[in-house]
Amino acid sequence: MDKPKLYILKIGGNVIDDPIQLELFLKTFAKIQGAKILVHGGGKIASNISKELGIMPNMVDGRRITDAETLKVVTMVYGGLVNKNIVALLQSFGCNAIGLTGADGNIIPAHKRPVKEIDYGFVGDIEEDKVNDTILSSFLENGLCPVMAPLTHNNHGNLLNTNADTIASVLAVSLSKNYHVSLIYCFEKSGVLRDVNDEKSLINNISSIEYENLKKEGIINQGMIPKLDNAFDALQKGVQSVQIIHADEISGFINQTKPKGTELHV
Amino acid sequence: MDKPKLYILKIGGNVIDDPIQLELFLKTFAKIQGAKILVHGGGKIASNISKELGIMPNMVDGRRITDAETLKVVTMVYGGLVNKNIVALLQSFGCNAIGLTGADGNIIPAHKRPVKEIDYGFVGDIEEDKVNDTILSSFLENGLCPVMAPLTHNNHGNLLNTNADTIASVLAVSLSKNYHVSLIYCFEKSGVLRDVNDEKSLINNISSIEYENLKKEGIINQGMIPKLDNAFDALQKGVQSVQIIHADEISGFINQTKPKGTELHV
Repeated sequence: MDKPKLYILKIGGNVIDDPIQLELFLKTFAKIQGAKILVHGGGKIASNISKELGIMPNMVDGRRITDAETLKVVTMVYGGLVNKNIVALLQSFGCNAIGLTGADGNIIPAHKRPVKEIDYGFVGDIEEDKVNDTILSSFLENGLCPVMAPLTHNNHGNLLNTNADTIASVLAVSLSKNYHVSLIYCFEKSGVLRDVNDEKSLINNISSIEYENLKKEGIINQGMIPKLDNAFDALQKGVQSVQIIHADEISGFINQTKPKGTELHV
Repeated sequence: MDKPKLYILKIGGNVIDDPIQLELFLKTFAKIQGAKILVHGGGKIASNISKELGIMPNMVDGRRITDAETLKVVTMVYGGLVNKNIVALLQSFGCNAIGLTGADGNIIPAHKRPVKEIDYGFVGDIEEDKVNDTILSSFLENGLCPVMAPLTHNNHGNLLNTNADTIASVLAVSLSKNYHVSLIYCFEKSGVLRDVNDEKSLINNISSIEYENLKKEGIINQGMIPKLDNAFDALQKGVQSVQIIHADEISGFINQTKPKGTELHV
């Protein structure tokens, strides 16, 4: 029997930070037929609220150092404000969304990242073999659309700040056993670009060998590397289709025209 | 066939505001066997964070006026910080909790309270006939323990701040069709007291007629009236058992000794 189709879409800060763009995105997302999961990142709201609360954001190489106070802020902003507003908007567009963190239903067990050169604080490394895809599948079968915030937990009572690209990748791998998964990273560019300042330099197809070469040549820059690592990781672990596209392109999943962007190949 | 047993417990601010008391409560709650739902209020954290963000809390008769900025704060604090920390703690105690608002799964549709003498702002009046008990039942059947934050939504994209006592009552009524529901309001007193300053003046049993008389006599004071109205409302609409007890008494539900407190009768 063919596996049912499942879309897993990830949106990042640029969509979340702009209420008009977010609403447009969600309106389109709500129309995608069949099983779907939305994974969202944080956006600048967490940094802004941190500052208002007198907690200065501490970033190292684009990653947030999550001390105890910052963990409270991201729990409030990612797990509360961002997640529940997305849910309320999706409900208004007729999509039966349910907002979750990795702690809910023990969906994503993780552990605090071990301290090496940098202490990232309360940041979670996912225990991939323990991802609870059974509960997510039961939600999907009940017509629910899980909306995942970038938080996991360590089963000892602590929430952990966790990269949303990684959550999307790990969930896609776990659910690919029972679904034909299309994993789609949506962001502010048309896809993987040869020249980050030229949207016309889009690379339509990229294999893992080409990716390695482009990294060596310095054509794929630092910001894209973690995203592409997550994306190729999903593909290599059995996810059926992985794309990186502009957030505006998701309408292609409604009218079955192929969205423009970058498609990954093993 | 006998209906399965379901406990619905509500905890308020006094338990939530004290991390040690909260952890102890949750440790005991986790041990209660069978289907259970936890409904939590807000506590003082929302007011404290409001103030830190420069939004002065505005209370009228003990009710929070929820303007747009305050709605953001309660969404962060109730839906994020409080709810997800409870979930993470329950998971650490072996209880498969799932944190939800009334927007998630469209569980609790509501509308913004009409403006009469006071404009409460983004405060929700629940549409009781539309409560989605099917989804909650399916979660309970899957061994999940829903943890409900005091937020609902209007199906037009807005979250609404909603009284947790009312949420507990409405969910109890809705689920009493298919479950033998015990609704338990846990708070900082031993139960309904004849003299609010004397814990020994506990009223063990109270009927709706006695309640009306005690209100007329001024013995039951203002703070208790909304809670008791919600509690009697549940009883009159078919909830099988309604109690008001001290939070420390819930261990009685584990060892099957009857918790001390006030039991309501029609």
